[in-house]
Amino acid sequence: MKRIGVLTSGGDSPGMNAAIRAVVRKGIFHGVEVAGVFSGYQGLIDGRIKNMEAGDVGDIIQRGGTKLFSARCEEFRTDAGQEKAIEQLKKNGLDGLVVIGGDGSYRGAMALTKRGFPCVGVPGTIDNDIPGTDYTIGFDTALNTVIEAIDKIRDTATSHERTFIIEVMGRDAGDLALWAGLAGGAETILIPEETFDLDDMIDRLEKGRKRGKKHSIIIVAEGVMNGNELASLIEERANIETRVSVLGHIQRGGSPTARDRVLGSLFGARAVEVLLEGTGGRAIGMKNHQVVDYDMTKAFTEKHDADMSLYTLSKELSI
Amino acid sequence: MKRIGVLTSGGDSPGMNAAIRAVVRKGIFHGVEVAGVFSGYQGLIDGRIKNMEAGDVGDIIQRGGTKLFSARCEEFRTDAGQEKAIEQLKKNGLDGLVVIGGDGSYRGAMALTKRGFPCVGVPGTIDNDIPGTDYTIGFDTALNTVIEAIDKIRDTATSHERTFIIEVMGRDAGDLALWAGLAGGAETILIPEETFDLDDMIDRLEKGRKRGKKHSIIIVAEGVMNGNELASLIEERANIETRVSVLGHIQRGGSPTARDRVLGSLFGARAVEVLLEGTGGRAIGMKNHQVVDYDMTKAFTEKHDADMSLYTLSKELSI
Amino acid sequence: MKRIGVLTSGGDSPGMNAAIRAVVRKGIFHGVEVAGVFSGYQGLIDGRIKNMEAGDVGDIIQRGGTKLFSARCEEFRTDAGQEKAIEQLKKNGLDGLVVIGGDGSYRGAMALTKRGFPCVGVPGTIDNDIPGTDYTIGFDTALNTVIEAIDKIRDTATSHERTFIIEVMGRDAGDLALWAGLAGGAETILIPEETFDLDDMIDRLEKGRKRGKKHSIIIVAEGVMNGNELASLIEERANIETRVSVLGHIQRGGSPTARDRVLGSLFGARAVEVLLEGTGGRAIGMKNHQVVDYDMTKAFTEKHDADMSLYTLSKELSI
Amino acid sequence: MKRIGVLTSGGDSPGMNAAIRAVVRKGIFHGVEVAGVFSGYQGLIDGRIKNMEAGDVGDIIQRGGTKLFSARCEEFRTDAGQEKAIEQLKKNGLDGLVVIGGDGSYRGAMALTKRGFPCVGVPGTIDNDIPGTDYTIGFDTALNTVIEAIDKIRDTATSHERTFIIEVMGRDAGDLALWAGLAGGAETILIPEETFDLDDMIDRLEKGRKRGKKHSIIIVAEGVMNGNELASLIEERANIETRVSVLGHIQRGGSPTARDRVLGSLFGARAVEVLLEGTGGRAIGMKNHQVVDYDMTKAFTEKHDADMSLYTLSKELSI
Repeated sequence: MKRIGVLTSGGDSPGMNAAIRAVVRKGIFHGVEVAGVFSGYQGLIDGRIKNMEAGDVGDIIQRGGTKLFSARCEEFRTDAGQEKAIEQLKKNGLDGLVVIGGDGSYRGAMALTKRGFPCVGVPGTIDNDIPGTDYTIGFDTALNTVIEAIDKIRDTATSHERTFIIEVMGRDAGDLALWAGLAGGAETILIPEETFDLDDMIDRLEKGRKRGKKHSIIIVAEGVMNGNELASLIEERANIETRVSVLGHIQRGGSPTARDRVLGSLFGARAVEVLLEGTGGRAIGMKNHQVVDYDMTKAFTEKHDADMSLYTLSKELSI
Repeated sequence: MKRIGVLTSGGDSPGMNAAIRAVVRKGIFHGVEVAGVFSGYQGLIDGRIKNMEAGDVGDIIQRGGTKLFSARCEEFRTDAGQEKAIEQLKKNGLDGLVVIGGDGSYRGAMALTKRGFPCVGVPGTIDNDIPGTDYTIGFDTALNTVIEAIDKIRDTATSHERTFIIEVMGRDAGDLALWAGLAGGAETILIPEETFDLDDMIDRLEKGRKRGKKHSIIIVAEGVMNGNELASLIEERANIETRVSVLGHIQRGGSPTARDRVLGSLFGARAVEVLLEGTGGRAIGMKNHQVVDYDMTKAFTEKHDADMSLYTLSKELSI
Repeated sequence: MKRIGVLTSGGDSPGMNAAIRAVVRKGIFHGVEVAGVFSGYQGLIDGRIKNMEAGDVGDIIQRGGTKLFSARCEEFRTDAGQEKAIEQLKKNGLDGLVVIGGDGSYRGAMALTKRGFPCVGVPGTIDNDIPGTDYTIGFDTALNTVIEAIDKIRDTATSHERTFIIEVMGRDAGDLALWAGLAGGAETILIPEETFDLDDMIDRLEKGRKRGKKHSIIIVAEGVMNGNELASLIEERANIETRVSVLGHIQRGGSPTARDRVLGSLFGARAVEVLLEGTGGRAIGMKNHQVVDYDMTKAFTEKHDADMSLYTLSKELSI
Repeated sequence: MKRIGVLTSGGDSPGMNAAIRAVVRKGIFHGVEVAGVFSGYQGLIDGRIKNMEAGDVGDIIQRGGTKLFSARCEEFRTDAGQEKAIEQLKKNGLDGLVVIGGDGSYRGAMALTKRGFPCVGVPGTIDNDIPGTDYTIGFDTALNTVIEAIDKIRDTATSHERTFIIEVMGRDAGDLALWAGLAGGAETILIPEETFDLDDMIDRLEKGRKRGKKHSIIIVAEGVMNGNELASLIEERANIETRVSVLGHIQRGGSPTARDRVLGSLFGARAVEVLLEGTGGRAIGMKNHQVVDYDMTKAFTEKHDADMSLYTLSKELSI
């Protein structure tokens, strides 16, 4: 390979810039040219492709978001769209592509690979929900954003002796709620992986009150239900007034933590190595403390499992 | 005076603990005993009053919330409630009271003063909406919490080239929206002090797009309308898709900024000085860079004015 | 005036970028062209001058440092250097210049003004030591950086029951030490404005120990003496072992606080207004809560006074 | 076992409180009484032992430092000291002890275990230097503190086009320097594990300058040499002026990151499980993404290895 590309796709996540920097510089280190594809698959179709030098990725390792921008792209789901993409890749003299994003982005990368253009996937999403890797880029930063929010809300919960419901991201995966709940000392954590049991939750709240617990934090992943809905259920059933905080978009941004920058650097560099071996259809990950690469289809055909031991531990410790 | 009390009331705000510390230690410095009244006016009625030594307020200057707790209290609005309060104050040997809170708390303090028990008010609220003082304790911290959120959201807004609406606190006062909007580089700021003009806003959005501006931040104070309502209006009228973030309760908590700790310290100390002169019915504030005290009734009979020059400047700079 | 310039000079301070943004956009708002002069007076002499559009200062309000760079320049102190500068200014069609920096930068601006080229000064320095203004751009951010450091060190001081000395910036002005000491709950504050009294300090330390105070924080401005020197004095005299932390360069950087962004915006905008009136030799400041402009020579001929009431209060509250 | 104790020893590290909370609550969950031993081994000898309920460890998971205090203790290194400790443990009805700290603390725990009193070790140190575990409690927080400092200093380095030397903790282990250097985008990282090569470093600095790199960050672990010494070497040899920042004690404190809170919780809970099985002389750790326990002697007889692949990667990416 003589020239490779890199793009970011799907929701942005902190640490994507560290991964972009690693792809560009690792490529240059190996004597390969690197081009940035701007605005995801849409930009690929439109040919928004530009050469990147080492200096173009200077001073970005500490920035949230993605310097290459991201966008949704319906057209790329069609054969016509994918053919246009392949055309642009050839026209720009690219031999391989690193795709940084979530499982949707991987599907696109696999489609290109199947059409004969080798792609490697790097897991960038705050949801930590990609099968085959223990961590995704952005999860650690989002997690710390959530616990800072919990710490702030706890000040008010304690001062006013109130129960707060905090809704965090996580449609299908409870990782963010689980880790944040344990780290934030939440009394209750509701995740999509566990059947919602209103009775049990009310029971815990009321037992807590009887033991003298005057404030309480409930973390709910958006995939279970929204915070306001939960508040209504609790009020109806147990006549306990709650306050709701929906953390929303602040969870996506911010300067990446050290871990997300290191993860982004490791993953981006490994993606280049794998690509330079000429192999497409691989995804990069961290498995049992080792950087690994594996068949990319695993990432969207298998299921990510949350670490349920954290769930059990949280219940034991929030007595 | 030989013994004075201190209580916090209404919504908690960061820096209240600095003010409590200042009241306790300044009192002790002047040879006066200081008692903490827990859980606001409700705790006063219930007699939750405890002596406080210098060590009891150690290691709290950096904490959000209020060590004395806060609570709503309907009973205190009645004659019977106020009489019970006076009884408790006498029973506990108190000669004066410092009340830290917003305008609602001041009304209570004035009621006690009129019944012959001298109270002094210290402005503690993130809304910065108390007439007679340029700043309230907690405003600076809330403001910095808001701009950190804006900075995070801007990462995503830029990466995805989207328009975001951020709803901040402020039912009647636009200070938080105004300062945060200017400091956060928001393109549009909507505050209760200014008539909402949908046409003008849409016009600015569209002009920005024509000039090549691909993302945009709109700050709206909750007193104008809620974020989702605004999003619908924009979508209906201009067919511009937006994302909404409601910052909510995270704005109240957190470790206070340096300024809020200094303000809390200055105000708490001055409150003790005023009280020891035997005068009740005074409120403490910062006016033209000086710590002042003034007739407390001013705080709930007059109107707070936001600094509209910030509004004008923000419009000029967000071109 | 049809075209004005802006430069930053001296040590960088957080909020300088907000001021640059305000100068550029306020100028454009008034129909004037604005050029950035890069790398301070050295860049001016070398003609590193470039036109700036509204978009060139987008996304910088939240960044520390200065987008225009800064540098020392011996040559500019000479007549020859200043004449070269005037030449470059004329060659680039500039009619006026906004200089953002400390008192050294103001001297340069005054020299140009005396040579017939109108300059206006904007106070950018973390030291808060410019006569004629109550606050300088960057002070609030540096202050919050210092108290975050104090909060961290207090964790260890408390856990190990130790005395810590924290050395902060401030060669001639004690503002940073003073505010940070009060806000950080320091037991002792040493500033250049106050005669250093070893006996009194030791006395306070020992009295504290007798009252059961097991840890202690001493804040010393670098202008008094360095932290290690102080540690030796305390060890020799009172046989108290201390730990020393020199905060150093972290005090200059970081994303500016809301206040520094607002201050930078207000000052930059006002500087443009003053300049467009055709007046040079003025400095911008905040005096008694009002943005003001005043004779620039005041800034380097008079003396800045620290607010000694904070010093007294800190002593009263750290019992 | 019916009653177990917990103590913290050695330098404090963020997340120790999460571990204490986990030990106390997990013990109570299993029906065992838990006592806190205050001020490390010194407090153990002196019998500063107090029962702890679930509520005693409420609201501490987010605090830096250690609620149980820590202290050095020469006496405990003697037979006499250890016998006194055993006596106190028996007198207080304790059947086992969890010791949270570094390798020095583990030696003490092993000594007690050999005397027939079962102890389990939990790795709490910011240095990440305990053999047998991939991570120690506090490392992640210290790491993030360091990169925040690097980010701040980079603002000034960039604005003034200067070379900065940042000295971080790490006498024997380079983990902190290594991770921070990679995550902070440092141009050069000096760690004790690698022979210091002045020529190579100067060479890199000069090549960077020739390529137009105008500022540079060098991270040096204190175990290699101190920052000022390094600055002199560089100035003498290459006539490059540098600025030095010694981060010092701020690296130990601060609210723990999410990861350190989770690690502390997992480790504390597992320590209780191991202890309740009646086994002493075990240390808890994280190995290949699994919580493990292993022979405690390994922790002070073997050598911790830094992940040198990070070192190589950093060199490749800082071109």
